[in-house]
Amino acid sequence: MMLSANAAAVDPAAQEPVAHIPDTLIPDAAALAAAARRIRPWVVETPLLESPALNTRLGGRVLFKAEPLQRTGSFKMRGAANKLLALKERGALRAVVAYSSGNHAQAVAAAAALAGVPAVIVMPKDAPALKREATAALGAEIVLYDRDRDSREAIAEDLAAARGAALVPPFGDAEIIAGQASCGLEIAAQCEALGVTPEAVLAPSSGGGLIAGLALALGARYPGIAVHPVEPEGFDDLGRSLASGRRVRNAQTSGSLCDSLMAPTPGALDFTINMGRLAPGLAVSDDEALTAMALAFRHLKLVVEPGGAVPLAALLAGKLDCTGRTIVCVLSGGNVEAELFARALSHSP
Amino acid sequence: MMLSANAAAVDPAAQEPVAHIPDTLIPDAAALAAAARRIRPWVVETPLLESPALNTRLGGRVLFKAEPLQRTGSFKMRGAANKLLALKERGALRAVVAYSSGNHAQAVAAAAALAGVPAVIVMPKDAPALKREATAALGAEIVLYDRDRDSREAIAEDLAAARGAALVPPFGDAEIIAGQASCGLEIAAQCEALGVTPEAVLAPSSGGGLIAGLALALGARYPGIAVHPVEPEGFDDLGRSLASGRRVRNAQTSGSLCDSLMAPTPGALDFTINMGRLAPGLAVSDDEALTAMALAFRHLKLVVEPGGAVPLAALLAGKLDCTGRTIVCVLSGGNVEAELFARALSHSP
Repeated sequence: MMLSANAAAVDPAAQEPVAHIPDTLIPDAAALAAAARRIRPWVVETPLLESPALNTRLGGRVLFKAEPLQRTGSFKMRGAANKLLALKERGALRAVVAYSSGNHAQAVAAAAALAGVPAVIVMPKDAPALKREATAALGAEIVLYDRDRDSREAIAEDLAAARGAALVPPFGDAEIIAGQASCGLEIAAQCEALGVTPEAVLAPSSGGGLIAGLALALGARYPGIAVHPVEPEGFDDLGRSLASGRRVRNAQTSGSLCDSLMAPTPGALDFTINMGRLAPGLAVSDDEALTAMALAFRHLKLVVEPGGAVPLAALLAGKLDCTGRTIVCVLSGGNVEAELFARALSHSP
Repeated sequence: MMLSANAAAVDPAAQEPVAHIPDTLIPDAAALAAAARRIRPWVVETPLLESPALNTRLGGRVLFKAEPLQRTGSFKMRGAANKLLALKERGALRAVVAYSSGNHAQAVAAAAALAGVPAVIVMPKDAPALKREATAALGAEIVLYDRDRDSREAIAEDLAAARGAALVPPFGDAEIIAGQASCGLEIAAQCEALGVTPEAVLAPSSGGGLIAGLALALGARYPGIAVHPVEPEGFDDLGRSLASGRRVRNAQTSGSLCDSLMAPTPGALDFTINMGRLAPGLAVSDDEALTAMALAFRHLKLVVEPGGAVPLAALLAGKLDCTGRTIVCVLSGGNVEAELFARALSHSP
């Protein structure tokens, strides 16, 4: 585990205060269906891909939900679209502010452009240039912060107050989670069309909004399905939180190639949903993520970013037994620099 | 234009004998519909992707048919599946032989494996290792030949006779063309779902089977649509044949990065269909193809091989004006070596 200089002093067992979130805040089936309907004009129904070669290698049937093909290159468009359209329905959409390492940034910028309102995005200084450029190209104003020193939440809240803008958080919000759940509803419909019943679903987790949405959408449909969050080693706050029953914080705040999976601690609402609904978390190394990217290139013809590839990485590294099982892997995004992708390709799988 | 040593003596205006192909051999609408129905269990309905960034750059609306996501990584699975299933329906499927630089090879090998019959594939010695390995992994026997010296057709015909196997040609066959046409039928249905009418379609051409299938499927549906074949510079036999009204032969037989687009001359049946149905051919350089691959990586998150990227290359190079138009680009395959893909990514677009 690599520690950055500033983060070494943080206690890895540090716990967040217990948040008392009433169950009524958890989006129900009607809220998930409404979100999926609402966002349909703005999002892509991404395909569920399969590779006979990967099936043979993994010993089971693995279906890949291809979120790199989503508008803006990641699943984040789903939550952002639902949030902005719900704000609009309530007459509360004038301007938006968001903080994000890049994928949520692009999603909020794109949704704001579609809605015709201004967006300010608070991004870490070390976010990939590709993500910064894509966000700026979508017309958003960008404010940079230091991952190790600054509180992105505080900066974003101040900006929102100063500009009379709505804050669009990357997770920890019922409307964001309901939007991400549309990924799970699509998976269910696509599995039904294939005539298969998934026994497990793996998806990356940063704040936990995607995996919470998947747990809500798929848990109801497939009782007993195992929904595993996958995180980078050293950033496995959700896995450790699930094990301990309390939200814990990562010791480090930077230092993974999986730039999209470095939230410091699980979101409060997300964790309320996830605790009791998720199977154990899995954690993978940067090298395992790069190998997964190389295999997705070769067998799926899909560009996947390091953070988006962690579910496949976990399967390839044998962290979950696939033998004879039908498993869905959500490959959550594909916003990766050419140089890093070329490096992944040299990881001969 | 680069000439290989052996090919320099070939007259670039060399014409093939005129083939007298009766119109009754051209698959009609019922044959196309039957093929699409027949192959459905074996093929993927590939998505039609779109990138706002590419739309802005090209000045029109460009929809990308993502055939790299097809089973075996290229559109070739469509024709191979139709051929093998049609042979099976006729009780004539015991074993198959095919010649191919790699994509048709993998498709025939995969279709034979699905049908449970043996396959022998005749491949050029310089075919990408990735394509050879993938073909072998599908259980096919591989026989190598020299592009500049040997006749792959003769080798394949001898093998087929010796083994009592059916020859599955890569083009020049009504059932192969009807299978490729399913790509066009999907495009029409997907455009209808989007509420758009395509004004032009661009697709790569080697022997001309894909573009013939597209012309049949889309020409009937959209009268006046411009169906442009795109070829590598120096391998623009179809473009020159369309211009001269007679099948001409390429001067060179090797030397393009677009390994899938080096058929020496248009197929006879394919050309009978294409002459009179196609808009003028476009030709692109290897560098233009590499730049298109880099942009498909960045904006579509799709792995496209050089030969598969030539339609986007033609648009990016300004060889067809997109301004204010709705255009479909068929990105026909994604079977590319990691090293060559990494080289394409260094083509900063």
